[in-house]
Amino acid sequence: MTVRVGIIGAGAMGADHARRLHSAVSGATVTAVTDIDHDRAAALAEQVGAEVRADAGDLITADAVDAVIIASHDSVHADQVAACLAHRVPVLCEKPLAPTVADCARLVAAEEALDLPVPLISVGFMRRFHPPYAEIVEAIDSGVIGEPLLARCSHRNVIAYPGGDSAATITNSAIHEIDIVGWLLGSPITEVSWHATRSTSLDGSRQDPQVLLLRTASGVLTVVDVFVNARYGYDVRCEVVGETGTVNLAPAHSITVDHALTSTAAYPEDWLPLFAEAYRRELQAWIDAVAAGRPSPLATARDGLQATRVAAALVESMNGGGVPVKVQS
Amino acid sequence: MTVRVGIIGAGAMGADHARRLHSAVSGATVTAVTDIDHDRAAALAEQVGAEVRADAGDLITADAVDAVIIASHDSVHADQVAACLAHRVPVLCEKPLAPTVADCARLVAAEEALDLPVPLISVGFMRRFHPPYAEIVEAIDSGVIGEPLLARCSHRNVIAYPGGDSAATITNSAIHEIDIVGWLLGSPITEVSWHATRSTSLDGSRQDPQVLLLRTASGVLTVVDVFVNARYGYDVRCEVVGETGTVNLAPAHSITVDHALTSTAAYPEDWLPLFAEAYRRELQAWIDAVAAGRPSPLATARDGLQATRVAAALVESMNGGGVPVKVQS
Amino acid sequence: MTVRVGIIGAGAMGADHARRLHSAVSGATVTAVTDIDHDRAAALAEQVGAEVRADAGDLITADAVDAVIIASHDSVHADQVAACLAHRVPVLCEKPLAPTVADCARLVAAEEALDLPVPLISVGFMRRFHPPYAEIVEAIDSGVIGEPLLARCSHRNVIAYPGGDSAATITNSAIHEIDIVGWLLGSPITEVSWHATRSTSLDGSRQDPQVLLLRTASGVLTVVDVFVNARYGYDVRCEVVGETGTVNLAPAHSITVDHALTSTAAYPEDWLPLFAEAYRRELQAWIDAVAAGRPSPLATARDGLQATRVAAALVESMNGGGVPVKVQS
Amino acid sequence: MTVRVGIIGAGAMGADHARRLHSAVSGATVTAVTDIDHDRAAALAEQVGAEVRADAGDLITADAVDAVIIASHDSVHADQVAACLAHRVPVLCEKPLAPTVADCARLVAAEEALDLPVPLISVGFMRRFHPPYAEIVEAIDSGVIGEPLLARCSHRNVIAYPGGDSAATITNSAIHEIDIVGWLLGSPITEVSWHATRSTSLDGSRQDPQVLLLRTASGVLTVVDVFVNARYGYDVRCEVVGETGTVNLAPAHSITVDHALTSTAAYPEDWLPLFAEAYRRELQAWIDAVAAGRPSPLATARDGLQATRVAAALVESMNGGGVPVKVQS
Repeated sequence: MTVRVGIIGAGAMGADHARRLHSAVSGATVTAVTDIDHDRAAALAEQVGAEVRADAGDLITADAVDAVIIASHDSVHADQVAACLAHRVPVLCEKPLAPTVADCARLVAAEEALDLPVPLISVGFMRRFHPPYAEIVEAIDSGVIGEPLLARCSHRNVIAYPGGDSAATITNSAIHEIDIVGWLLGSPITEVSWHATRSTSLDGSRQDPQVLLLRTASGVLTVVDVFVNARYGYDVRCEVVGETGTVNLAPAHSITVDHALTSTAAYPEDWLPLFAEAYRRELQAWIDAVAAGRPSPLATARDGLQATRVAAALVESMNGGGVPVKVQS
Repeated sequence: MTVRVGIIGAGAMGADHARRLHSAVSGATVTAVTDIDHDRAAALAEQVGAEVRADAGDLITADAVDAVIIASHDSVHADQVAACLAHRVPVLCEKPLAPTVADCARLVAAEEALDLPVPLISVGFMRRFHPPYAEIVEAIDSGVIGEPLLARCSHRNVIAYPGGDSAATITNSAIHEIDIVGWLLGSPITEVSWHATRSTSLDGSRQDPQVLLLRTASGVLTVVDVFVNARYGYDVRCEVVGETGTVNLAPAHSITVDHALTSTAAYPEDWLPLFAEAYRRELQAWIDAVAAGRPSPLATARDGLQATRVAAALVESMNGGGVPVKVQS
Repeated sequence: MTVRVGIIGAGAMGADHARRLHSAVSGATVTAVTDIDHDRAAALAEQVGAEVRADAGDLITADAVDAVIIASHDSVHADQVAACLAHRVPVLCEKPLAPTVADCARLVAAEEALDLPVPLISVGFMRRFHPPYAEIVEAIDSGVIGEPLLARCSHRNVIAYPGGDSAATITNSAIHEIDIVGWLLGSPITEVSWHATRSTSLDGSRQDPQVLLLRTASGVLTVVDVFVNARYGYDVRCEVVGETGTVNLAPAHSITVDHALTSTAAYPEDWLPLFAEAYRRELQAWIDAVAAGRPSPLATARDGLQATRVAAALVESMNGGGVPVKVQS
Repeated sequence: MTVRVGIIGAGAMGADHARRLHSAVSGATVTAVTDIDHDRAAALAEQVGAEVRADAGDLITADAVDAVIIASHDSVHADQVAACLAHRVPVLCEKPLAPTVADCARLVAAEEALDLPVPLISVGFMRRFHPPYAEIVEAIDSGVIGEPLLARCSHRNVIAYPGGDSAATITNSAIHEIDIVGWLLGSPITEVSWHATRSTSLDGSRQDPQVLLLRTASGVLTVVDVFVNARYGYDVRCEVVGETGTVNLAPAHSITVDHALTSTAAYPEDWLPLFAEAYRRELQAWIDAVAAGRPSPLATARDGLQATRVAAALVESMNGGGVPVKVQS
């Protein structure tokens, strides 16, 4: 069976998913595309041999659509996911599932109310399919580092999207760290605090970098620094320290180029090259699950709710001057 | 169009290709499998939903086969490729195209005699699709290291296949280095010499390691060491030194695990994990070309002939006590 | 002029200094040794050709002693330094200058009361002479990373000294990070907070690891993790992140050894191999300054006081459940 | 006892030794300096508090000179070493002991004719004191890599001294590799061959780079590439491959600086920063041996003769078009 996918949102992320499904995933075909910008939808549709649909509702209910990817503006995720639930269509919603805890919780409740044997909602936390993170989990599970005690993560973007503020750093960028930390440590984050440092002069609209302390139910503290105007390169670091050892992501470059008294290794400008394989594996896993009628191995609606709850707690800590805040559960 | 692929040879390499086409390549389906061991063919066919064919000839001429992958014993490659030519079926033949220069040359001649607009033969030198090699070429092309002057490559297997001799090291293992060196440097290898060193006591059947000097038409000398019983790990190194800089493959591990007073990074046991992405890209590129009726970007029959000629010259140098030998052209 | 040095304390640190002065420093000779364990003093004295003195007072006032190194128990540092001041003898006191802020402040006041053109007290924060830290400062000063915004440091011992508690982790181990962070960033630490994480089961006597947040007058936040039972190796990490770049200590190993499917690099068991060159440079710089009658480039009494103040603030934060605490000034 | 050292040659190398003895070595003082350029000698003498001597003969026979360092032009090494022998003065002669095999052999014979219990001649192959090479030997001796089978070394200078030719590359630069390879492998080099590659356009006076094959008595082949105009940085690499593992020099940088989409590590412009510690240890070891009347642990006259013999064989191979040449013994 070839899974026929409809894509809502033909921006960078939606286009990337569409092209990847079309050219690098087995068992899928993109049959429908929609976007509030019709020309953008048409251009993408032509690239991948799909039809343009008038709007999200039209796409979700189309006969030729077995499954939907939502890569639209965050603010409409909740309604579009709800529409997929209403029509019993499997949906992969880009992160965040919804910007507010209330909306996420409604979607979780709506899905659970359907009481289906196979959940419909998957959330696009693609890092769970990044092979080096899987290797970290394998190393932890092997016992070689002993019980995890502490983690350190860094998230560095070259330059922030214009228009964001300090809260947007948390809900758009740090949210990836939030999801992956809970996933790596196998324990939900239950308490957080937010800490400022000297802020870059290159972005007047937000505190940047930020330091986040995340504590899991298992007691492990994770220190995350998020710097969305780091300039030097797109860079993601992660270390998990255990009782008898430590595991670290290795630098991600494939070659070194030495010249002019310098050995150099390139950083990518954004996350796409680093996570290209993660996106491919995520899509393939989702398509395979949809085709087989199995539960998807992607992040669930509950995972999406949990990430949004942690982000909300961090924003609350930020607004409260850095006090510890419990994550709602 | 979905390309229907028949696979000749259900051993490790053929099975690997079949599963990859089935589960990670867009636009392909495996429809037929054959093997001299019928049970092995049946097991693989079941995994990927294909039919078993009685023999190579039967598979090549099957209606449900648009393209063929040959992963059978080296000794039958030439006949099977010739059969594909006879039936005008695009074929991806695992390296070597054929073990002898004469057989390779016959296939080149046969293909050219067909005078088709799109060549039928591709050869499975998958390293050309290994992203780090592409980055080396990009670095060279950028001019940052200046004109290439010297290259150094290492090819290290954990343990040799039983039954091989010193010549097999060249024709089975070093042949990957032979192909990639000419490809990286953009110039054919025209002269070679072979050098012994102290040989491991762990393999009584061959000189191991070997040192190969390969000189391209452009005058660049490449020093290759091939050690097929290196034990410590599957390891491939490559450096190209130019007038103003040098480019090196970086270590390939994704994580480091530190414990017991040691920082460790894992080596794979064989080439499959290191080149998994290269194989996937190679297959996808081949399928895309077959589907579009375009010439494939894989190694050609002439490339396969050239690699076998260089290997033959190395064997001649080895038998001549290390004297320089010109590569036939 | 050869500087004649007397050494108080013939334990590991004192013996190390004595041997280094004897065998690897220009312009110095060890003439006197004392220790509460007379036999230990005698053994060391014989190794370096020195005399044994009855006690610290006797050593400090000896004719054949131009300068004194204090490597005795922390609890007697203050009295011994005071005795050096009383006899106008230049003294290099191992860290901490004294365990309490009050004692450190008294020594600073006593030295300042002498109103000498060249201060007498140096404190053994040898990391200031570790060449990689000097390279970090050079990189910051070059402007390549822009204004520093954030720092991250890790301090990992293999196994804690028996008998210590959570406060001892701060005053004995983290104190090196405390000193070097202020020195690297060129700004004093003015506020701190202390954070627990899941604690190792291998040391029942303390919280381990600990996470420390140190804020400098310049607004830079430094996140330090200190783990004195890290088991995997003696490891020190440091990163300074600026507006346009970041600088990191590189791994300290000199060779890699690959075997058994693993590439390995060794960690030392303790700090001595890592900081051997720092100790040598510190001693040479101190001897050169004493010989020339110049102020020593080592940490001063005020530096020692500041480090102890920061440590005290961290202990206060720890006892207060992690609240931010201002450093006394 | 303080060893009083006289230094012949106040150029870069002689001045470097003088300053190091003066400022970073225990138990030594520089008492005399001479140079064919009197002003240069005077300037150096003032820096280190020494006297200027009229010429080498005058210095060697001075009362205030216990030991001599020869850092003069290669062409006068032999006569000056002979004069030291004549006056029974311990001498550390910079490499090469002498440019010709005949001169080296004469010095070996002259020293042996003296039949002294402690040899007088040491040769300045400082790499034997470079700690990472010692770690390679330790790794080999530990058995972890098994019996050594193959070695690979690279020697890269930024820019060649003007005036040299292809033979000078061997006798001045490659000679360090020649000495260290025999030392690391614990077996003398007995056969060599020389190989050209495409030559840089940036130095019209010599073949550059060169590839050298060195075979030890134990059968191990070492592949050395020497590139004296590599431009990109001063770089020395070394790998020893054994039956069960391999050991490599790690990159030598202490920090990484990341900016402008690049992670960078600095190369030195010449060998002095890389081998500063090796020079210091070499000098300290020599001074300690002289002071104690013990044989020096430095390279001996025989080692100097052997290196010159291997270099001569390489020049012979070069002149013979790359044929293998036996090293005279």
